[in-house]
Amino acid sequence: MTQEKKAIVCFSGGMDSTTLLYEVLDRGYSVYPVSFDYNQRHRVELESAANIANRLRLPHKILKIDLGQIGGSALTDMNQAVPDQAANQQFSTVVPLRNALFCTLAASYGEVIGVDELFYGPVKEDFLAYRDCRRPFYDSLEQALTLGSSQEDRTVRIHTPFVDLYKQQVLLRGFALNIPYELTHTCYRGQRPPCGECDACKERLAAFARVGRTDPLLA
Amino acid sequence: MTQEKKAIVCFSGGMDSTTLLYEVLDRGYSVYPVSFDYNQRHRVELESAANIANRLRLPHKILKIDLGQIGGSALTDMNQAVPDQAANQQFSTVVPLRNALFCTLAASYGEVIGVDELFYGPVKEDFLAYRDCRRPFYDSLEQALTLGSSQEDRTVRIHTPFVDLYKQQVLLRGFALNIPYELTHTCYRGQRPPCGECDACKERLAAFARVGRTDPLLA
Repeated sequence: MTQEKKAIVCFSGGMDSTTLLYEVLDRGYSVYPVSFDYNQRHRVELESAANIANRLRLPHKILKIDLGQIGGSALTDMNQAVPDQAANQQFSTVVPLRNALFCTLAASYGEVIGVDELFYGPVKEDFLAYRDCRRPFYDSLEQALTLGSSQEDRTVRIHTPFVDLYKQQVLLRGFALNIPYELTHTCYRGQRPPCGECDACKERLAAFARVGRTDPLLA
Repeated sequence: MTQEKKAIVCFSGGMDSTTLLYEVLDRGYSVYPVSFDYNQRHRVELESAANIANRLRLPHKILKIDLGQIGGSALTDMNQAVPDQAANQQFSTVVPLRNALFCTLAASYGEVIGVDELFYGPVKEDFLAYRDCRRPFYDSLEQALTLGSSQEDRTVRIHTPFVDLYKQQVLLRGFALNIPYELTHTCYRGQRPPCGECDACKERLAAFARVGRTDPLLA
């Protein structure tokens, strides 16, 4: 008898985490997608997430944590503009320890529903601006969450299968999995169609260009 | 020239964390008290916290994170009763990874206001029921938060000076610091005067009894 494999996938509705969701399903897991409503300017991504989860008939959970109250980031502070992509400017979109908070919330929810494995989708480009997108951070965090879990025998795992892949490599994986990228959302400014100028849009466009495809959001 | 020492104190308005607040002030830190509104049944503790911080003219920050959405604990689930103190029953008051979430939120806020040192107040009794009240957990978490901080040179420290002290030892320290315990709140059921029967009340009463004092909340 094989045991059912269960996993929480942290899932924003964007290009990378949607690919991650399909990847984890392809690996044979029962998937519990979790999205975060953190008062992000681009909250429309949550609609994309709900829509995709619904199509796949997965039990989608949206966890709310207002990071606007922390301050310090253009992604949640409506008084700061999201910059166009330019050297160093992407740092204003850093939300301090955002991924630590998201993984910890997901692990807390996982303890309640009996799921110990988490999947998180940082890609290689992310770690230039965001230190909490690097593997040593996740190694350390999964140890902390394991030590802090209320069950002695619980081992929390945080898988980051894309951490050493560039965005275009993730995209190629996604094409192989027939992912409906027209349903995803990426723009930091929350615009539909995407603004094409913010850091997130530029990276998405560049990835599609590198693999010689057209982004279906712009088609 | 000596540098100003700054610290965030995680501060519920209860007996232990109020003692911690005074202790950290006594150590010469500029203190930034942070409380958590997590949809706890005993939210009245936040009024005690605000009252005490206000008296000390400290910049009190209340961070909101609804742990009711996670489920699984009598402290946030209004459909579960808070049990009287009895063998094993206190486990229903476990909120999974609550302290991990609180420390991470505090560290995130600390990054924005430029404070790297956190103080957290678990005491020796806590770690019977709560694994995230043990020092190895905090050692691991401070490493994870340091690795995840967006500044390369930031070192997050989580001090837990009471972790090896029993509640009555904390209380003795508090009496030496002239702490106004009549302003604190402890009861998990959120009652004023305290119910005297829940786990939190029983522990508080026992501590006062052991040092031969009367709890001013009951006087």
